[in-house]
Amino acid sequence: MDARGPVCVGIDPVYEELPPELQTAATSKDRLAAIDVFCREVLRIVAPVVPAVKPQIAFFESLGYQGVKLYFDLVAQAQQLGLLVIGDVKRGDIGHTAAAYAAAHLAGQDCPDAVTVNGYFGADGLAPFLQVARQQGKGIFVLVRTSNPSAAVIQDFTGPDGAKFYEHIARQVAAVGDGPEMVGAAGYSCLGAVVGATYPQEARRLREIMPRQIFLVPGYGAQGASAADCAAAFKADGTGAIVNASRSVLYAFRKGPHAGKDWKQAVASAAKDLVADIRQALAR
Amino acid sequence: MDARGPVCVGIDPVYEELPPELQTAATSKDRLAAIDVFCREVLRIVAPVVPAVKPQIAFFESLGYQGVKLYFDLVAQAQQLGLLVIGDVKRGDIGHTAAAYAAAHLAGQDCPDAVTVNGYFGADGLAPFLQVARQQGKGIFVLVRTSNPSAAVIQDFTGPDGAKFYEHIARQVAAVGDGPEMVGAAGYSCLGAVVGATYPQEARRLREIMPRQIFLVPGYGAQGASAADCAAAFKADGTGAIVNASRSVLYAFRKGPHAGKDWKQAVASAAKDLVADIRQALAR
Repeated sequence: MDARGPVCVGIDPVYEELPPELQTAATSKDRLAAIDVFCREVLRIVAPVVPAVKPQIAFFESLGYQGVKLYFDLVAQAQQLGLLVIGDVKRGDIGHTAAAYAAAHLAGQDCPDAVTVNGYFGADGLAPFLQVARQQGKGIFVLVRTSNPSAAVIQDFTGPDGAKFYEHIARQVAAVGDGPEMVGAAGYSCLGAVVGATYPQEARRLREIMPRQIFLVPGYGAQGASAADCAAAFKADGTGAIVNASRSVLYAFRKGPHAGKDWKQAVASAAKDLVADIRQALAR
Repeated sequence: MDARGPVCVGIDPVYEELPPELQTAATSKDRLAAIDVFCREVLRIVAPVVPAVKPQIAFFESLGYQGVKLYFDLVAQAQQLGLLVIGDVKRGDIGHTAAAYAAAHLAGQDCPDAVTVNGYFGADGLAPFLQVARQQGKGIFVLVRTSNPSAAVIQDFTGPDGAKFYEHIARQVAAVGDGPEMVGAAGYSCLGAVVGATYPQEARRLREIMPRQIFLVPGYGAQGASAADCAAAFKADGTGAIVNASRSVLYAFRKGPHAGKDWKQAVASAAKDLVADIRQALAR
C-alpha cells in the first residue's frame, strides 16, 4: 500500500476498555467525550506508522446519534492526517435503499475512502456503491469469508461440484469487479473483498479466484490469526491485501508485550509491531 | 397480528418524492424538517389503520447524524401512537460488534420493537440480538429470501441434494429460533425471517421449513408482488406473517388508484386498501 506497510488499525472504541485515566465519565455525554479524546489521540499516534484506519461504526452507533456524528468527525480527522479510511459499516440492501446507504457512507463530504458492504443481495445491491466508487475513486470491500467461529455453518455450504458458498460469492465479486472503469493502473479493482485471516488455506484459494481484488483481512491479533496466516491473502509480490488489527493495538496497554506501559506508548509500539510482523511474514 | 390486519407501512422518506407542498426547502436543514413533518403526519394517519410501521434507516442515515436522531425520534413517536416498530437496519457482524449494534438498535430506550438482521455471520452474529430480544420481549427478523431481481444469483446457490442456500439459512434460523425462552404463547419465536413476496412458491416451502418464524414480507405493491403472492407466506390459519408496503402507501398521491388526491387522503386510503387487499387474499 505504501512505505508504512500493508496494514490498518481498527478503531473500535468501547468505554469500559479505555485506559483507566480516561474512564472518569459521570454522564453519557462525558463517556462520548472520553471516547472522542481516545480516538483522536489514537489517530495522531498511528498516522505516521500505518497507512489506513478502519473505524467500526457499530461502536459509534451504540453511543446514539452523537456517536454517529463523532464517527464522521473522526473520518475527516483521519483523512486530514493523511490516513486512508475504511468505514466498517457492512451495509447492504436492495437498489434504492442501497443507493441511500451509498450516499450516506461513501458519497458525502466527510465519508470514508472505502466501506465494507454485505453482498447477500447480489449485484443490484452493490451497484449504487460501485457507482460512487467509480466516480470518486473510492473503494468497497464485500464480505466473502468472515473470521468468526460460526461463519463456517453458513459460508461453507457446499454445491454439487464441491464449491463452497463463499467461493461462489468470490466468483461474483471477481466478475462484477472486472467491469468497466473498475480496475486501476496497478491492476486492482475498486471492488475488494473481506477475507478473514483465520482460514489461511481458504485465503490462498480465494486469492486465485479473485486476482484483481484487494483483500481486507481481519482476524490478526486478538482474533487469533498470526502474520503467517495473513500472508496467505497476499500475492507472491507482496501486494493485494491490507491486514487489520483493532483491539491488539488500541488496548495494547492491557495485554500482550506492551501491557503495563503508558497507553499511548503501548499503542505506538503495537502499531509498529504490527507493521514489522506483517512485513517479516511477507519477506519469507 | 391484531384487528387492523397483518400489515405494516414502510417509512422510506426521500425528499424528492415528498408531496410538492413539502418540497420547499432551501437548505439541508429545511429538507430534514420537511421529512420530519411528512413522517410524523404519515405515522398519525396510519396508526388507526395498521398495527406496525417499518422505518428504513438508510434513508435517515443519508440525511447525516441529524437524520439518525430523527429516526429514533420517529420510533418513539410511533410507539406512543400504539404502533409496533420494526427497525429496518439489516445490521450484521461478529460477536462483540454485533453486541454494539444490538445495544444501538434494539436495547436502548428509543429503540424499535424488532429489527432486521443480516445472517451471513451465522449464530454467533445473531446471539447478541437474541439476548436483547429475549430479555425485553422484542424480536429480530433475519434475511432469508430477499425480493430484488439479482438476489437469485446469490441466494439460489444449490447444494448436492438440491437444497438452495436460502433454504439452508432458513434451517439455521429455525434451529436457532427454537432455543430456550424464544418461543412465545402463540407458538412463534422472537427470531423471525424476512421472506420476499416476489417468490410465492418459495415462500410456501420456507413456511414448511420455519413453522415457528413470523415472516416479514417485503415486495408488495411498488416491488410487484400481489396480495395473493403475499398470502403464500402465511399459515393456513392466516397467522404468521406481516406484509410490508412502503412507496405504494407513502407516495400514493403520485401513482395508482389514489393518484391526484390530497397526499394525506391518499396515504390513508392506500393504507386501508393494503389491509383490505391482504385480508381478502387470506380469506380465499
